[in-house]
Amino acid sequence: MSRAIGFIGLGLMGEGMAANLVKAGFDVTVYNRTLAKTKALKALGARVARSPAEAVTAGGIAITMVANDSVLEEVTTGPDGFGEKLGHKGIHLSMSTISPVTSEKLAKYHLARGCDYVAAPVFGRPTAAAAGKLWLCMSGPKAAKKKLAPVLQAMGQSVHDFGEAPGAANVVKLAGNFMIAALLETMGEAFALADKNGVSGKDAAAFFAETLFAAPVFRNYAPLIAARETKDVGFFLKLGLKDINLVLDASNRSQTPMPVANIVHRRLVSAMAKGRGDWDWTMLALGVAEDAGLMNKKKS
Amino acid sequence: MSRAIGFIGLGLMGEGMAANLVKAGFDVTVYNRTLAKTKALKALGARVARSPAEAVTAGGIAITMVANDSVLEEVTTGPDGFGEKLGHKGIHLSMSTISPVTSEKLAKYHLARGCDYVAAPVFGRPTAAAAGKLWLCMSGPKAAKKKLAPVLQAMGQSVHDFGEAPGAANVVKLAGNFMIAALLETMGEAFALADKNGVSGKDAAAFFAETLFAAPVFRNYAPLIAARETKDVGFFLKLGLKDINLVLDASNRSQTPMPVANIVHRRLVSAMAKGRGDWDWTMLALGVAEDAGLMNKKKS
Amino acid sequence: MSRAIGFIGLGLMGEGMAANLVKAGFDVTVYNRTLAKTKALKALGARVARSPAEAVTAGGIAITMVANDSVLEEVTTGPDGFGEKLGHKGIHLSMSTISPVTSEKLAKYHLARGCDYVAAPVFGRPTAAAAGKLWLCMSGPKAAKKKLAPVLQAMGQSVHDFGEAPGAANVVKLAGNFMIAALLETMGEAFALADKNGVSGKDAAAFFAETLFAAPVFRNYAPLIAARETKDVGFFLKLGLKDINLVLDASNRSQTPMPVANIVHRRLVSAMAKGRGDWDWTMLALGVAEDAGLMNKKKS
Amino acid sequence: MSRAIGFIGLGLMGEGMAANLVKAGFDVTVYNRTLAKTKALKALGARVARSPAEAVTAGGIAITMVANDSVLEEVTTGPDGFGEKLGHKGIHLSMSTISPVTSEKLAKYHLARGCDYVAAPVFGRPTAAAAGKLWLCMSGPKAAKKKLAPVLQAMGQSVHDFGEAPGAANVVKLAGNFMIAALLETMGEAFALADKNGVSGKDAAAFFAETLFAAPVFRNYAPLIAARETKDVGFFLKLGLKDINLVLDASNRSQTPMPVANIVHRRLVSAMAKGRGDWDWTMLALGVAEDAGLMNKKKS
Repeated sequence: MSRAIGFIGLGLMGEGMAANLVKAGFDVTVYNRTLAKTKALKALGARVARSPAEAVTAGGIAITMVANDSVLEEVTTGPDGFGEKLGHKGIHLSMSTISPVTSEKLAKYHLARGCDYVAAPVFGRPTAAAAGKLWLCMSGPKAAKKKLAPVLQAMGQSVHDFGEAPGAANVVKLAGNFMIAALLETMGEAFALADKNGVSGKDAAAFFAETLFAAPVFRNYAPLIAARETKDVGFFLKLGLKDINLVLDASNRSQTPMPVANIVHRRLVSAMAKGRGDWDWTMLALGVAEDAGLMNKKKS
Repeated sequence: MSRAIGFIGLGLMGEGMAANLVKAGFDVTVYNRTLAKTKALKALGARVARSPAEAVTAGGIAITMVANDSVLEEVTTGPDGFGEKLGHKGIHLSMSTISPVTSEKLAKYHLARGCDYVAAPVFGRPTAAAAGKLWLCMSGPKAAKKKLAPVLQAMGQSVHDFGEAPGAANVVKLAGNFMIAALLETMGEAFALADKNGVSGKDAAAFFAETLFAAPVFRNYAPLIAARETKDVGFFLKLGLKDINLVLDASNRSQTPMPVANIVHRRLVSAMAKGRGDWDWTMLALGVAEDAGLMNKKKS
Repeated sequence: MSRAIGFIGLGLMGEGMAANLVKAGFDVTVYNRTLAKTKALKALGARVARSPAEAVTAGGIAITMVANDSVLEEVTTGPDGFGEKLGHKGIHLSMSTISPVTSEKLAKYHLARGCDYVAAPVFGRPTAAAAGKLWLCMSGPKAAKKKLAPVLQAMGQSVHDFGEAPGAANVVKLAGNFMIAALLETMGEAFALADKNGVSGKDAAAFFAETLFAAPVFRNYAPLIAARETKDVGFFLKLGLKDINLVLDASNRSQTPMPVANIVHRRLVSAMAKGRGDWDWTMLALGVAEDAGLMNKKKS
Repeated sequence: MSRAIGFIGLGLMGEGMAANLVKAGFDVTVYNRTLAKTKALKALGARVARSPAEAVTAGGIAITMVANDSVLEEVTTGPDGFGEKLGHKGIHLSMSTISPVTSEKLAKYHLARGCDYVAAPVFGRPTAAAAGKLWLCMSGPKAAKKKLAPVLQAMGQSVHDFGEAPGAANVVKLAGNFMIAALLETMGEAFALADKNGVSGKDAAAFFAETLFAAPVFRNYAPLIAARETKDVGFFLKLGLKDINLVLDASNRSQTPMPVANIVHRRLVSAMAKGRGDWDWTMLALGVAEDAGLMNKKKS
């Protein structure tokens, strides 16, 4: 019954997602640009391919979890891409955070080859990916989504359907990442205000996290923002910038002015200019503390 | 055992809070500028006073839940104010959203008269006030806070202590109201982006409200923001502006630049300029939709 | 001595610029996508070509003054483009407002064919173009700039050299257009403040225009902004948006956060969403008046 | 003919202004909080008073050029203030940058005592004050303005009348200082963009200063902004913040959202938080360079 799965892209998120598929008993072949990252998967029982095309079986499922739109296009339609091989009745399950425009483009590409394209971007940090606790939103042809149900279930705690438009799920993902980034900035401002008015930002964060803002995203991020440091990187700041660039691109195309999106974008760009691209993206809020002179005081 | 309570200010919030005190068996005398609003409380068994001073008993508890800092100063230290009457060992429980500076000022005023001042601003909409489900943060002298415990319990689902500085709880309240306002704007931008990119903002709101943003504040507000209308007013926009003005005042005094606070402030000011002061403050996000041309399209 | 000139692009600006070249005695062949716009030039003595390639002579000068980067690439390197024909020792004088990245790309393209590329974007409204009073900034190979001196002199009141990097002059042009847009917004805010505080914005504009802000750009725009209407279109708002998009693209690539650029961008996007793309770009400042409720009052 | 003048406030601006009055032959008595600053004026022939009241003659002219609204109220209506002494037919010529609300308040105060109040804030840096080259805007009763003409002429190169409303000239002054601050930020962004794209910001500044932005305010400030340092302080940053606070106060009272004003305000607040209150206010633009990582590079 179960189709062969080619899983392409073993970054911080992809590794845990692919592992859950293997553990759930799927026939998984993985591909990653740097081979070293395939070791753990191989140990779990996955096959390892040397190219995206090699990872995929005709009529099977190609799952992509790669860094950005251009890498996605390359692994799909590039020289070593799996696009031509996926063939009739294949399904491309596209899980990266990408532009809805790219989804529309790839959906057309696959349609011409008898394949289906389903967008299913994910919400959750690497720990959630490893635990199979991601939230998934999806959009694409009904029949394909039905066939993918067991695959998606193995990776996420819930799946939310946004209809058949190829890029719809990507729009939701962009809106969500924007909201998270906006919350990081908002918390940065709120906790800096507290700190500079005699109340520990950490105490304020703890209060809000168990009362009106008692949501996963707040509970995860509030202590990190209040502490103004993140030892572990869950999501690279440079990738956060990529996502907010996609948000602003969608904002531009659809003529939707978004002032808060501009603020978080500037924070991320400034962090890049200061050489913080490989820090966790929570550190976008560090700019707030710097503007408030809080970081100077720390040093002195 | 229980001291007499004078409850001053029966607005959308105060009415439910005072009612819960009466129901809990406290000896409550209420005062409100417009007498009509005291009817329901009287029916429940509260006494009705004709002035703030008349509402309060020497050595008792004065609870204030009024519109702003200047009204608070008037009912406390003005000609008919309760300040002189509260007397030795009285407690002023100040629950309005006010500046920490005003709390410091009033704490000194009461201290000189042998009274204690406890700030205990509340989080929650009028329905939560009526249901005794408010979240309370408090700050002030330890002994006074201990004495107030049963009173606070009658009004809130939990009480959070932020130490002895008179204005500390007010700082937390301001930080919280700022975060809520920021969330309203953020949702306004996110859902407008969705709507203009072919995904129903309402569907996106529903998804986020049950997953990563599954917090009370988001669950309450997301459907209202996505619908772009609020039939019932839980919190007047003009009062929201008052609060954000307090936030900006604290931001200024403490030299903490807050760009998102500036954005929500401009939304509120613009809404005032358009005559929307008596709408619910969720409608600050309407400015996003207007900038995106969404409201024009609605009409046509 | 004088080389044949092919002039491509007869928009609001190009028409006057080409006319000045004809009047100065240059041998000019014009090309425009819609033929009708070539009539006036023909009457002045210019030849009319049916394609960009036809307009240009091998070893001559190709002047481009087109709508945007993609049109420029099309008329240069597209199927009917002049790129291959311009040939050895030809000069491409690129006067449109474009990205420095496009200039770098085209400079390489021409270099490979033995041609020079000189960027020379212009400052001034259509009346200045017609009067030969433009300010020109240029960058490119020294020898080519020297050869172009008489051509440039026929179109502008002064020429400013920014060195040899192909895109340098474009950077200056983008910085300048950003500053103008920022000034439009700034004046919009300042005059709305005046109007809403009992001082006629028009009077304030007149005062500033003859004192501390007595610069051409201010003198031209201040009365238009203060009046909040522009009957004549000097520069289409949709083209202004294109330019600010180029500014933000350069800002992004170079990691330079620009908050005021974000504001004017949002104004322009919002104006587009409200169907004002064909208005004059001064009307970006109308958003200020709308936010302040000034336009409501006007109607009522 | 000429009434006795009491000149109160010998800061960076006031000293030059008072000196010009003495040189023009007016009978001038000066007062300054710190006596040392009166030396130069005394040497020129001015009398020196020990209090604001002592400086002023009944029925004479009181000129105030002080730091802010509260100092102005103190020197006018405070214990040692000149208000009661100025007496019948006296004129208060109020030249500080203050709120229009304060002007309205003082106009009423003087009216009750038979005096006139004329607001006449000034534009220009200290060098212009010393050279008698200030631009003056004024508002107040016609007759009083007529009487003041020779006095104003001695201090400024031109005088601009904004009618009889007491605060009208202050509104114009606030609008103007906002526009200057907005220009500082705008230039900061434009020149940072240039610098980070391979074009010297200094060269760009020089080009704009002699072409489309060839206005005094631009010519003065552009080189300072481009150089990112100001050795001489013409206007303290902390006073610039005071002015922008007045702008935002007027913006709030009149319900005029001003996003660019918020940006410059945040820059000034951040500069204060970093201990730069005594730097020249051009340095508000330093925040742009810091956000862009330009200052890091300088140090390394």
